[in-house]
Formats: sequence, C-alpha cells, structure tokens
Amino acid sequence: MAEYEYLLDIAIILAATKVLSLFSKRVNLPAVVGSLLAGIILGPVLLNIVQPSETLTNLAELGVIVLMFEAGLETDLNELKKCGLAAFIIALLGVLVPLITGGVIMYIFEKNVMQAIFAGTILTATSVSITVDTLQEMGKLKGKAGTAILGAAIIDDILGIVLLSLITSIGGSGNVDLGSIVFVLIKMALFFVLAGVTGLIAYRFFIWLMPRNEARKRRIPVLAFAYCLVLAYCSEMFGIADITGAYIAGVFLCNLSQSDYIHSKVEVVSYMLITPVFFASIGLKVTVDGMTPEIIILTVVISIAAVLTKIIGCGIGAKVMKYTNREALQIGMGMVCRGEVALIVANKGMKVNLMDAKYFSPMVIMVVVTTLITPILLKFAFYEKNSKKSGAKRPAKA
Amino acid sequence: MAEYEYLLDIAIILAATKVLSLFSKRVNLPAVVGSLLAGIILGPVLLNIVQPSETLTNLAELGVIVLMFEAGLETDLNELKKCGLAAFIIALLGVLVPLITGGVIMYIFEKNVMQAIFAGTILTATSVSITVDTLQEMGKLKGKAGTAILGAAIIDDILGIVLLSLITSIGGSGNVDLGSIVFVLIKMALFFVLAGVTGLIAYRFFIWLMPRNEARKRRIPVLAFAYCLVLAYCSEMFGIADITGAYIAGVFLCNLSQSDYIHSKVEVVSYMLITPVFFASIGLKVTVDGMTPEIIILTVVISIAAVLTKIIGCGIGAKVMKYTNREALQIGMGMVCRGEVALIVANKGMKVNLMDAKYFSPMVIMVVVTTLITPILLKFAFYEKNSKKSGAKRPAKA
Repeated sequence: MAEYEYLLDIAIILAATKVLSLFSKRVNLPAVVGSLLAGIILGPVLLNIVQPSETLTNLAELGVIVLMFEAGLETDLNELKKCGLAAFIIALLGVLVPLITGGVIMYIFEKNVMQAIFAGTILTATSVSITVDTLQEMGKLKGKAGTAILGAAIIDDILGIVLLSLITSIGGSGNVDLGSIVFVLIKMALFFVLAGVTGLIAYRFFIWLMPRNEARKRRIPVLAFAYCLVLAYCSEMFGIADITGAYIAGVFLCNLSQSDYIHSKVEVVSYMLITPVFFASIGLKVTVDGMTPEIIILTVVISIAAVLTKIIGCGIGAKVMKYTNREALQIGMGMVCRGEVALIVANKGMKVNLMDAKYFSPMVIMVVVTTLITPILLKFAFYEKNSKKSGAKRPAKA
Repeated sequence: MAEYEYLLDIAIILAATKVLSLFSKRVNLPAVVGSLLAGIILGPVLLNIVQPSETLTNLAELGVIVLMFEAGLETDLNELKKCGLAAFIIALLGVLVPLITGGVIMYIFEKNVMQAIFAGTILTATSVSITVDTLQEMGKLKGKAGTAILGAAIIDDILGIVLLSLITSIGGSGNVDLGSIVFVLIKMALFFVLAGVTGLIAYRFFIWLMPRNEARKRRIPVLAFAYCLVLAYCSEMFGIADITGAYIAGVFLCNLSQSDYIHSKVEVVSYMLITPVFFASIGLKVTVDGMTPEIIILTVVISIAAVLTKIIGCGIGAKVMKYTNREALQIGMGMVCRGEVALIVANKGMKVNLMDAKYFSPMVIMVVVTTLITPILLKFAFYEKNSKKSGAKRPAKA
C-alpha cells in the first residue's frame, strides 16, 4: 500500500489545512496561519501521520512556484518600474542587518568567524510566498507596499545568491575565489538577458494565440503554466531560485488582456491541490530532536533576531526611500518570512562544513516562526479602522 | 538539476499534449488522441526526452483518479439504477469473450494452459477513463449508453479482480485455493458496505456544510476532492482499483446541489496539470525492445483481438438487454479501452511466473492501441448527421 500512501497524505493535508484555515479565519487570522499549523500538527512534532516523500516535496515546490506565478500575474507593471531603486535599497538593508546580527549571535555560540557569517547568510533569505498569499487574501497585493515587497524580494534573492557563492567560495580555503564569484555573476546576468528575450517572445506568442478566437480557451492558461514551469526550471539551471523565475514569468504575462483569466485557472490548481501541500510541508519539517538547553536558547534568540532584523533593515530602507512610516512597517513585516531558500542554504552549509548539523533544527524552527508570524504581523500592519473603505478585498472563499 | 527535472517534464508534457490535441481536433478526432500521441512521441520510442519518475507516475495516477471522479459527479443516478442488471450482463460477456479469445491466441504461441488463461485475464481489464474523456468532450457521458458503460466498467473491475485472484491462487500449485478466493470476495463486499456507509455520511456532511452560506466557497470542492482521494486509497486497500473508488465517490456526491460547482473546480485541476500527465504517461510506457517477428505477430493479433472481443462481447450483452443496435455498438466500443489495470495485472503475472517477460511489451502496445482507437471508434459510433440536434455538447475549450 506504500505506493498509494500519497493519495491519503494529500487527502489528509487538504482536509487538515482547510479545516484549520477556516478556524484561523474564525479567530480573525489569515487563513495561511491555519494551513501552516496543520503541517506542524500532522508532522513529527505531534501526530507524525504524514511523512515527506518525493511526490509531496515536488507538489509542495509546484505549490510555491504557482503562488509566485500568481503574484507575477497580478503585478502592476508601472508600479513595479517606479519602485526599482527603492526595492534595491530595501533589499540591500534587509540583507545587511540580518547578516550582521545573525553573524554576531552565532559567533557567541560558536567561536568561528566563517560559521558565524554563514549563519548570518541563512538569515538573509526572504521568501515572500506567505506574504503573497496573505496580501492576496486582504486584497493588498497590488498596492504600493505590496509591489515594493515583491520587487525587493527578487533583489533579495539575487543578493542572497551572490552572498552564498561568496561565502562558500571562501569557505574551505579561507581565500576569496574571485573567479567563481565572477562566474556566478555572469551566469546570473545571462539568465536575466535570456529571461528577458524569451519573455518578450512568450508575450508576443500569447498575443498571437489570443485573438484567433475570443472564447476563453483552455490553451491559454495551460500554455502559460507550461511557460512558468520552464522559466522556473531555467532559473534553477542558472543558480537562481525557481520561485524567482516563476514570478518573472508571471510579470511578463501580467499585461495580457487575459492575465486575469490565466490567474483564475492557475488559482484553482493552487488551492485545490498544490498550495495546501506547500503550506503543510513547511510544518512537516519541524523536529525537536537533539534539543539541548543551549540549542533551545539559540533557537529562540535567532528566531527573534530573524523577525526584528528584517523589519528594521527593510523598514529603514523603505524610510530612506520616502515611504510613510506605515508603509515602511508594512514592507518590513512583509519581508520577515523566510522559506525553503533558507533551508536550502542551510543544507548546503552542512555539506561544505560551514554549519554544524546540530544547528539545522534551530534554522528550521526559525523559518517556521517567521512564516507563522508574518501573516499575523501583516494583518495588523494593514489593519484599517473603517474596513469598508479599504478597497476591493478578495471575496471570502475559504 | 535532476531534482528539478520534473518541472521541465511537466512543462513539456503540458505543451506537447495541448499542441497535439489541438491538431487532433483540427483533423476531427477527439482531443485525447493527440494527448496520447504526445506521450508516444516524447517517450522511448521516438524522442526519449521524458523519463517516468515517481512524481510523474503519481501525478498520472491522480489524473486518472480525477477523471473518474468527474465521471462520478456527472452521473445520472436514476439512469444508473435503471441499468444495473444490464451493466452486469454487458460486463460479464465483455469479460468472457476476451478471456476465452485471448486464452486461445496465447495458447497458440505458448503451449501452457495457465499462461494462456492469464493472458486472457489481462485482456478483460477495461479502463474507461479515455472513454469518459471522449464522451465528456462530445457531451454524451450522461446518455443511456454512457451510463451503461460506466456501470459496466465498475462490474468489469470487480469481475476482473475475482478472476485475477482465482488464477493467481491456482497459479503455482495447480489447485484452486478456495480460502483465498473467499477472502477476496469478503474483502470486496466489506469495501462496498464501508463505501456505502461513509458515502451516505459524506453526502450528509456536504449538505450540512452547504446551506450555512450560499456563496460558492472553496471548502466544498477541496473537501470533496479530499473525500475522493480517501475513497480511492481505501479501495486499493481492499484490493479494488483506486479509479473505481474515485468513481464511487463522485456518484455519492452527484446529487448535491453543488455537484456542478465541485465538478467545475476539479475539472480545472484536471486539465491544467494532472490529466495531461496521465494521458502522456500511457504513451511513455511504449517500448519496442526485444521485438522478434513472432512477438510482432502476437502484438498485432492480440491488439486486434482486444478491440474486437470487447465490441462483440459487450455488444452482445447490450443487445441481450434490449439496447438498440446503435447503442450496443456504442457501449461495446466504449469498453474497448484497456488501461493501467491491464498493465498492473501483467506486472503481477510476471512476478508469479504466469507470464513470460517477453510478452510485456506486446501487452503494453495492446493497451496503447485500444486506448488510441477507442476515442476514434466512439467518434464514429456517436456520429450524428445533423449534429445540431445532438444536444448540449461541451463547448470547445481546448
């Protein structure tokens, strides 16, 4: 029966995330909080009835890819262009503050400069998928703060990759391997050139595909989804996170007259199957094995630092770029959430001996804490006294 | 990059099945023919650019489960009740004729009675997923012939399982192991009792869930899909094919006022992601390794026999039950298609030495031939001169 286990796993995940997200909304929290809790409850910490498998892992990855593709499709391109420099400053300060703070904290626990810097690097990797879902639910994704968050998230990903290649290339020898860093930068530039060229071709292709018959044909969303997957795959090939590729794919298609139609279909695949698996899979990774008092203290400290440093770093960045206090807080809080990128970085660190295995659990818990707290923070940051004035919300559909 | 391969695989499958199904419709064939051809083209026979993986296999299985769930949701319950006995007779004759014919053919090639009977058993396993898709496209699934096909398919599955347990229990020793057959029958009866009880509970649950707020809430299709997956999993636990469980789950929910709404959401998941993977995965299995002239002859003969015996067997069954000639032909042709069940049976036969490994390729090709020819046959069987009178077709949405 093991070969059919995934059917039951998916069913349990769908039911649990749905029930808990309904409960979550009942107590006035974003639905995603419930979905994340469902994963923790089903995972090794509590019930231990769903084990990660290749199928679940890949479905989860598809889930986060689709979330970012949706965010791309909903992008307001003019707003995004406007916030280019601001996004860069926000991302830069949002990387530096956690990097330094994380490094200092780790150095107190483990007197090793390289390992300390590496821990700081893990703290830099923002993953805005949870923010995207929360802002979508509140109808705030297309706003000024929402666009700045998404712009900054891309640049954050790029800075994180540069940082990671820098530290791992120094890692073993203690010398900076300039060649490999230049190689990483060239690869990255190449990706954006390639993505740009193919993106324009894809855009033209979909325009050509559409007017042949105005009916809302299935071919449009299916081929758009295929394009998103190709770009997600290619971005990984060039060393960039697949979610960045998926977001860019969405941005390229966001000005199509049928982008809403594409979004409406992609959204169904998302909530009916793959996004719940993604949300649950985060909680499934939490374990409490090998927790010594020292590790517990580190976990608490690093989690608090992870939350505060992004709010402060990105918030200051936003203030510098003339956003209001309220917007700066919204942007900072939207960038708090770390995701699978942080875990991938941590994994890589263990492989090249830049991180001791005992620090993996704290990092996972840090990711889950930031993931759980982000939607709650956002709910407060975007709270409006007279909610009737707050514009078009996504209709409650849970 | 191997860990991200599935992204590219899915993208290629989506694009190839979509393009070829559009082409298929252009030459007036059902779209599914193109999707099946896409799999053959992408697979080892021609391009060999998509290799089966755990993720693709499981997505494909989800695809066929969802297809059968959709068929269940579209069931006309009164029509299904009416055709109970007819479905039994159709299924019975549709099992006996291929069983005997297949056995005789195999005996000519391999002078071994048990192996011959086993080959006949493989020929009995109908899988109506392709028929469902074709009839949906033509808007004929709810008709008299469509309902008879689906009813007969369930009974066919049950008869096939009984037959398989019978032959494998005799297999090794040459003696009938009555105990294990009784065990199989009890297990099966238990499943249907359990499915019935939980099905009524599920039905009540969804009725309770609905009127609390008349808005079309996501919880309904998500939880319905979870229920379908649970029943699919349970049916495998009781030795019954998961697609039968999925179909039954759909039948239990088909009388809900929101069954159309559930169907509309499940359908999107189906065509946007998992059903194309299922269609392509059939073609991916085709190989032409180890084809001696003798094996080629067997492949041709067994494929022709597979097509004709179902048409004749089920057709006679339908005639006996007073269907018109035209309906009998439609039903017979709808039952031609063999699917993954036949391959699972063949696999099992190799394990218990009831089938030589060299006969696996012919069986795979037989499955693909029946799968490819069924939609073409159905297109002709349901052809109406004045197609404007033919009732509500599914709008062209490819």
